[in-house]
Amino acid sequence: VTRQRPSIGLPGNKPAIILCRPQIGDNAGAVARAMLNFGLTELRLVKPEFGWPNAKAVAASAGAAEVLSGVRIFPSHDEAVGEFQHLYATTARPRELQKPVLSPAEATARAHAQCLEGHRVGFLFGAERTGLTNDESLLAEALVMIPSNPRFSSLNLAQAVLVIAYEYRRQVDTPPPAREPQAHAPASRAELQGLIDHLVRELDAVDFFRTPERRMSLVPAITQLLERRALGSSEVDLLRGIVKALARGGRANNG
Amino acid sequence: VTRQRPSIGLPGNKPAIILCRPQIGDNAGAVARAMLNFGLTELRLVKPEFGWPNAKAVAASAGAAEVLSGVRIFPSHDEAVGEFQHLYATTARPRELQKPVLSPAEATARAHAQCLEGHRVGFLFGAERTGLTNDESLLAEALVMIPSNPRFSSLNLAQAVLVIAYEYRRQVDTPPPAREPQAHAPASRAELQGLIDHLVRELDAVDFFRTPERRMSLVPAITQLLERRALGSSEVDLLRGIVKALARGGRANNG
Repeated sequence: VTRQRPSIGLPGNKPAIILCRPQIGDNAGAVARAMLNFGLTELRLVKPEFGWPNAKAVAASAGAAEVLSGVRIFPSHDEAVGEFQHLYATTARPRELQKPVLSPAEATARAHAQCLEGHRVGFLFGAERTGLTNDESLLAEALVMIPSNPRFSSLNLAQAVLVIAYEYRRQVDTPPPAREPQAHAPASRAELQGLIDHLVRELDAVDFFRTPERRMSLVPAITQLLERRALGSSEVDLLRGIVKALARGGRANNG
Repeated sequence: VTRQRPSIGLPGNKPAIILCRPQIGDNAGAVARAMLNFGLTELRLVKPEFGWPNAKAVAASAGAAEVLSGVRIFPSHDEAVGEFQHLYATTARPRELQKPVLSPAEATARAHAQCLEGHRVGFLFGAERTGLTNDESLLAEALVMIPSNPRFSSLNLAQAVLVIAYEYRRQVDTPPPAREPQAHAPASRAELQGLIDHLVRELDAVDFFRTPERRMSLVPAITQLLERRALGSSEVDLLRGIVKALARGGRANNG
């Protein structure tokens, strides 16, 4: 069965998050928030150990009402996952199950392709204390292991969901290339040379270089310093104003 | 200054997480947990609005004692960031600052390459309610925007940190691209701030700014101009020598 969910941040068909035997109401709310942060909207709870609706979940959701109001509760695992074509079982540790073990990036890339085909995709998360059982993972086509610190690998449930939601969105978005802001019209070589000449003239006037040898090594160093920085026209003007003010102002104040 | 942190899940030199004016103790604990989940260990708090040590942070950290016990508290932003060569400012929205805007993947790839060079790298996170101020972001070489749902973009602080920590680990597990050789040891943020302070002091002395309004717009412009140029330590020294010579020399010659 293909269903279209309303587009909230992410267009079209999207994966569902399925929490198996969640123990803490707050966590369900924090999961809803993490999901909506990255545009996922469909949340299912299988045999939750708390009542529903749940005031603590509402508080922890920070306003993710469009997720909470659509939550569906299931009395059994089979009923919760029945309609999905593809399931992924998140796990903190490798298991004996004969299934591929994928990174979040690999799993969400697959899931995205499957969603584009119109398939229903679900990500399974286990109880806070114990994770998914082997039975709960059996229908999954792959395990997803979040590559964490082996000495401190226990992610909070909402944070595990966040990694999947974040990665799913990363797969959907073509990553925007870094934009280097072109703040300024770049200075012409003549403007740059004018700045350097001006600076060196003022430095000569205050005997900054002291010896011809020092001057011969420092003028190229100053030139390189300014040349390599891709200054804009307006920046050259600003720097010339500064040089002028320091040199003249110093004289005027003390002359 | 290069420092080696003990290897916990991630080997060698790693980025620090810097929380600017955090408001809620629990969040600092949840941040510590998220960091350690992916092997980051150095946490700094700038002017926290809660006491430290903090029982709620301990509870929320789920046992991330090796991060909490090493937390350093700073009374000012400048002191917290002074020793870093590279800062990244996380933000939920684009700003008027003329800085590159990177995805978490791009920023952590850069940060990883910089850590391999032995440079000190910090990721800045703002107060829960308001995020980073422009002032807090000025010394950063780039902004990092987590690509979230535009209609529900407010990530919990620990979850924003989690995305960065997760992405950093993903970069570590990915072979780094070829690197351009670095001509100069990059200036620390304290060296850069020292140059800016020195220059502004001398410009004040010669009344370069004339009006408070002009000063208020030009000081950030000067800061950005110098920040964006990736100055080396020796270049900062050279520029400070120039400022000193122009200001003092002018006075000496004419006084």
